[in-house]
Amino acid sequence: MNTENISVVLVEPQGPRNIGSVCRAMLNFGLFDLRLVNPQTDHLLHEARQMAVKATTVLEEAKIFTSLEEALADCTLSVGTTRRFGRYREGLLHPDEAAKMLLPETVEDRVAMVFGREDKGLFNAELDLCQHFVTIPTNDKLPSMNLAQAVAVCLYEISKVKGELAGAEHGRKQLASNDDLERMFQHMRESLTQVGFLDPQNPDHILRAFRRILGRSGLNEREVRIMRGLFSQIDLLDEQMNKLKNQRNDNE
Amino acid sequence: MNTENISVVLVEPQGPRNIGSVCRAMLNFGLFDLRLVNPQTDHLLHEARQMAVKATTVLEEAKIFTSLEEALADCTLSVGTTRRFGRYREGLLHPDEAAKMLLPETVEDRVAMVFGREDKGLFNAELDLCQHFVTIPTNDKLPSMNLAQAVAVCLYEISKVKGELAGAEHGRKQLASNDDLERMFQHMRESLTQVGFLDPQNPDHILRAFRRILGRSGLNEREVRIMRGLFSQIDLLDEQMNKLKNQRNDNE
Repeated sequence: MNTENISVVLVEPQGPRNIGSVCRAMLNFGLFDLRLVNPQTDHLLHEARQMAVKATTVLEEAKIFTSLEEALADCTLSVGTTRRFGRYREGLLHPDEAAKMLLPETVEDRVAMVFGREDKGLFNAELDLCQHFVTIPTNDKLPSMNLAQAVAVCLYEISKVKGELAGAEHGRKQLASNDDLERMFQHMRESLTQVGFLDPQNPDHILRAFRRILGRSGLNEREVRIMRGLFSQIDLLDEQMNKLKNQRNDNE
Repeated sequence: MNTENISVVLVEPQGPRNIGSVCRAMLNFGLFDLRLVNPQTDHLLHEARQMAVKATTVLEEAKIFTSLEEALADCTLSVGTTRRFGRYREGLLHPDEAAKMLLPETVEDRVAMVFGREDKGLFNAELDLCQHFVTIPTNDKLPSMNLAQAVAVCLYEISKVKGELAGAEHGRKQLASNDDLERMFQHMRESLTQVGFLDPQNPDHILRAFRRILGRSGLNEREVRIMRGLFSQIDLLDEQMNKLKNQRNDNE
C-alpha cells in the first residue's frame, strides 16, 4: 500500500487558504499529488502558501486540469465525496470503508479522492465519473464541513487504516482465503449435522450464527486449521460411536 | 453518552480564523462548549465569524479563562493533545482510544479535550493538569497539523466511536459478561480435553487460539449459549460412547 499513489482532486476550489490547508493535510498523512480542476483562484497566492506551511512543494507541484475527466484519466478508481443523498444514497461509504477500498489498489495503481466546491460540492455529472461515494457523518445542526477539514478527516482515515492493514499483515499472518473459509463451514455443517447439533431440516439457522461470530473475528490460516481439527475430532468420535453401535447390534 | 458534555479547550490560540474553524468543526460533530485560555487575539473578529459559518453561537458563547486550571475546574477527566514524546510517551492514546475513554464519562460528567498553541502546543505544566494524552499519528515529513484540522479529526473520532458504541448496544444486544465468557471457556476446556482434542498436559496451547478468535469477535449472550450448546452436544456424544464401551466391556 502506497499513499503516494493517492491523488487528491479539488473541483473548482474557491479559497486560496483552503487549497493551502489541503496541502498541509496531505503532507501530514503522506500524500503528495494534488490536482486542481478549474480552480477559481490563483493557488499560488500568498495566503495559500501561508496555510501550506512546509507543504509548499505539494502546492507548487499541483497539476491544473480543465475537466474532472482529464484529472482522473490515469486513475483506476475514484471516490467522490458528497453530502447529497437521493441518487447516490445506495453504497454511500464511511471514510474508513473508502480507505479500505482504495488502499489495496495503491499497490500497483493510482487512485483518487475527489472533493467538490466549498459551497456546492460535486455535481451529479462529476459524481458519475467516480466509482464510489463517501460521506463524513455530521450533525444536522451544521452538516457542511470546511473543505480542508473534510480532506484532513478522509486522509487521517486512510493513514489509520493503512496502519491497521499493515499491522494485520504482520501480526496475524495471512488471513484465510474465502475458499478455505467456505470449505471450513461446509465441514462444520456436515460434522455438526451428523452429531445432531444442527437440525438436518434447517442447519443454516445455527450455522449462520457461527458464520457471524467467525466472520467478525477474521480467521487466519492456522486458525482455520484449528477449527477444522475440532470438526475432524468430532467426526472421529461419531465414527467410533457408530462402530460401537454396530458391534452391539451384531452381538444382539 | 452526550457529546454536549465534552468541552473543547484552546490554550492561547493565536489565529482568529483557527478559532472560528474550531467552532464549525465542533458544531459539525455535535459539540457546543468552547473554552479559551488567554486567547492571543479577539475571538469575535470578523475572520473568526467568517470561518465559524453557522456556528457563530458556539463562538459567541465561548468562555474565557485566565488559566487552564480554571478552565478545567468542572471537568472530571481531561485529555491533552501533544506531539511531544519523552515524558508523556507512555500511555499516549490514539484519537479513537481517547474517544473510547471520554465518552462513557459524558453520561454524567463534563470532560475536556485540551489543544495547545498553534506553534508550541501545550507546555508540560499544562499537560500535568490532564489525566490522559492523545496524539494524531502523522508523517515525519510534516508532523504538525493545523489546529482546527487536529480538532476536526479528534471530534470526528468521538462522533464515530459514539455511533459504534451506540450501534453495539442496540444491534448486538448485550455483549456477554466476562463471567459468562470464562464459564464458557472452562466448559470448552473440559469438553475438548475429555474427547481428546486438547492435550491434557497442555490444554491451554490450543485453547489460547480459541480465546483469541472468540475474543476478537466479541460474543453476545445468545452466541455464548450457542457455543455452550455445541460443547454440551460434544459432552453428550462422549457420554453415550462411554456407555457403549462399558456395555461392551460388560459383555466381554
